[in-house]
Amino acid sequence: MVSLSDKKEGIISRSWQRLNAFPGKIKKLGQDDSRRITHSLKVGLAITLVSFFYYFEPLYSGFGVSAMWAVLTVVVVFEFSVGATLGRGLNRGLATFMAGALGFGAHRLASLSGNKGEPILLALFVFIIAAAVTFVRFFPRIKARYDYGLLIFILTFCMITVSGYRDDELLEMAHKRIWTILIGGFTAVAVCILIFPVWAGDDLHNLVANNIEKLAIFLEGFGPEYFKILEDEEAPKKVSEGYKSLLNSKQSEESLANFARWEPRHGKFRFRHPWKHYLKIASLTRQCAYRIEALNGCLNEETQTPQEIRYKIEEASIKLCSESVNTLKELALAVRTMTPPTSANQHLISSKIAAKNLQSMLNTGLCKETDLLEVIPVATMAYLLVDVVSCTEKIADSIQELASLAKFKSTKKPEERQAQPNLCPNRSMQTNSGISIPAAQPNLCYQRSMQRNSSISIAPHHVIKIHQESPCLSVDPTLSKTTV
Amino acid sequence: MVSLSDKKEGIISRSWQRLNAFPGKIKKLGQDDSRRITHSLKVGLAITLVSFFYYFEPLYSGFGVSAMWAVLTVVVVFEFSVGATLGRGLNRGLATFMAGALGFGAHRLASLSGNKGEPILLALFVFIIAAAVTFVRFFPRIKARYDYGLLIFILTFCMITVSGYRDDELLEMAHKRIWTILIGGFTAVAVCILIFPVWAGDDLHNLVANNIEKLAIFLEGFGPEYFKILEDEEAPKKVSEGYKSLLNSKQSEESLANFARWEPRHGKFRFRHPWKHYLKIASLTRQCAYRIEALNGCLNEETQTPQEIRYKIEEASIKLCSESVNTLKELALAVRTMTPPTSANQHLISSKIAAKNLQSMLNTGLCKETDLLEVIPVATMAYLLVDVVSCTEKIADSIQELASLAKFKSTKKPEERQAQPNLCPNRSMQTNSGISIPAAQPNLCYQRSMQRNSSISIAPHHVIKIHQESPCLSVDPTLSKTTV
Repeated sequence: MVSLSDKKEGIISRSWQRLNAFPGKIKKLGQDDSRRITHSLKVGLAITLVSFFYYFEPLYSGFGVSAMWAVLTVVVVFEFSVGATLGRGLNRGLATFMAGALGFGAHRLASLSGNKGEPILLALFVFIIAAAVTFVRFFPRIKARYDYGLLIFILTFCMITVSGYRDDELLEMAHKRIWTILIGGFTAVAVCILIFPVWAGDDLHNLVANNIEKLAIFLEGFGPEYFKILEDEEAPKKVSEGYKSLLNSKQSEESLANFARWEPRHGKFRFRHPWKHYLKIASLTRQCAYRIEALNGCLNEETQTPQEIRYKIEEASIKLCSESVNTLKELALAVRTMTPPTSANQHLISSKIAAKNLQSMLNTGLCKETDLLEVIPVATMAYLLVDVVSCTEKIADSIQELASLAKFKSTKKPEERQAQPNLCPNRSMQTNSGISIPAAQPNLCYQRSMQRNSSISIAPHHVIKIHQESPCLSVDPTLSKTTV
Repeated sequence: MVSLSDKKEGIISRSWQRLNAFPGKIKKLGQDDSRRITHSLKVGLAITLVSFFYYFEPLYSGFGVSAMWAVLTVVVVFEFSVGATLGRGLNRGLATFMAGALGFGAHRLASLSGNKGEPILLALFVFIIAAAVTFVRFFPRIKARYDYGLLIFILTFCMITVSGYRDDELLEMAHKRIWTILIGGFTAVAVCILIFPVWAGDDLHNLVANNIEKLAIFLEGFGPEYFKILEDEEAPKKVSEGYKSLLNSKQSEESLANFARWEPRHGKFRFRHPWKHYLKIASLTRQCAYRIEALNGCLNEETQTPQEIRYKIEEASIKLCSESVNTLKELALAVRTMTPPTSANQHLISSKIAAKNLQSMLNTGLCKETDLLEVIPVATMAYLLVDVVSCTEKIADSIQELASLAKFKSTKKPEERQAQPNLCPNRSMQTNSGISIPAAQPNLCYQRSMQRNSSISIAPHHVIKIHQESPCLSVDPTLSKTTV
């Protein structure tokens, strides 16, 4: 008995704790994204607007009970983003119209076969259409865009066909239903677009830029953390692990891209903005995040490589990190502001030079070390860094492609860009830990148009073709054609 | 004009090509998973069954137009798996009932405030409930399980409250609606469970086992491929890349686990089967797949390490691979057959010994090589292999945990197991390329109960604490407590 009452008390106290935590959770949910609050209020408003149908005598008497379809439409169509709402609305409208027409045809056809044949024929039609359309819903590409429409198609067809058997006012019912759905859909879309619209396209655009920036933020903290440049006991973990959200973001990116394709021209985006290309950039960013994950593993290593071994590649590594950070930040900025990533190119070239230097240093500096076990973790880290540069280049290429597909326009005149090669040296150079790393010197860089065939030919993982050349800090005009 | 007609022709020929490819696509979709065909036929059957409501006079006159709710319920509730169908059905039923009761209360409350106050109060109620419930839908845990119920809650509440303003037969309407929904839901669930049921739990269970096996299949092909044991020009790519599907399978696993939790006791699974624990195993398997992805990168490397360097670690690596393959296959088999993974433990120990040997060999054999650049790729590969062993151990631990949570029962008596330590030596030892690697010798293994604290303490990536000991092939009884 005691244990039972103890259990009861436990349940009560846990419920009480949960109840107490609830307001905090609500607050956090709203603070994380205040658009959630706006969206909730918008849904409430749209439904209230549509429910006025019932209150106003003339409107109500026109539609009768069918008016409920307007409420139903608003509830099921209203989604968080404009694209999702439009997609569902169009799916619902078109599917209702097409299924209604087909259902009416099926009903007429069945009615020709006499009293006995009619129910059998109708049942057969319902079975065939329901089974066939359900099967079509399994096609991945159709499912991604038209799943809801197909569901509504089955629903409407069955309801029209079957109720048609009973009711000869089919046309009037169809007419009312289409009108109420149009009214409901229009209300939902209007409220969704006119009051604080949430564009899936904007979300995808920002997500891609943020993801690239997350990589930069990690790398910014990585160099100082790995080489223990600033040992600050109070801040034990300086590197940002924000990049981890990238590792599993594929599906949310895909659904955003699907929604964005329903959206009309808005803000900076044209009607046929290349949303699919964002998925390509996102995929390359994720590839880079896998390398970053491996680099993060290097921070937690147990083998304590002597500081002097690390010291040999410190400068080159820090330089590579800072140039990669600059490249990635410029790329993120280019996506965000929709300008061609010209200034990123300069940093990319510098980072490739840094990668070359790092490799030479490994070759000349570390080969003298005979204790392989101490060298290997450092060498692995260095190779991962070089790998990150090759990933960065792929991202830069695909953003360059996006820039030409989406016709990104430069906000500055060419002369201005020439004079100001580094658009945000202070912002991108300041590391998390407050260390300021000198920006790429303009005299080390030169303007180069990003060309696809100039990519570093580095294999997917760890494996780099290394030219045993002496360290090269001077500008090599043929660099864009050599294999770093 | 020519270009226009060319364009037209292009569109027509492309449409024709697509139309021609369609039957092939349908066939492939059905062949990939024949349950899709069964599901489509089941949906057709359930809807046809429910549509009989309209055909039979006594049933129809009882419910009138409300009978359409039964069809609607079947269409929206019927999902691919039993769990999803039950979840939607329960969500729909409960939400309708609760929202109906609340809507009725709101309607009565509003009617007390007189003719003028009533519409204002009703509109206020609708606004508040719609906004509040929409906000609650943003809670991730609630969204995962009750999203559909909350949608139906808003829908029903609004329809009951608003239509109630017009219609005093509210109770009768609610009564009819609940009955029709019950009939529709019952039909959907009955057809779903009784005719070729698809259990989400079974799918999750098999998915987890298959995923582990995919890792094994990759490793099986990796050793021979990396060391070019059997150079067969006709089969240029021997390793299986099936593991790649694991990298982005998180969301499908989570939704399967959510569905599985709705399912009743069936087949081998009890009612409260630890479905959530499968997600843990799946996550560890994915961690291992990241290492496998890196290993796959080693196959495509450009640096041609001299064969003699590779040869030094070939035997140890092949041994490690084959033991890991055995461990993983035994683990997959244990999950599949729901038996404790005792025979996997033996292989795990052997693979840990092999990992230790490989490390020693790196230390003694490769340290003499002075050309760091040639050694590093091989060393990286070797460390990744050792890392795979540590991942395998984590997977084994979590499967052991699952075995105790789900009370896996051994199908054999203890004596039989002792006599037959390797349950499937031939199956798991036969590599893709036909090379037969000797199974772990029973005298090298000893039975050990899997203990959580005996794990190899290897850092997340690449970084292994290495004891500089001489190669050890004999059984070390203290192994389970040493750090390999």
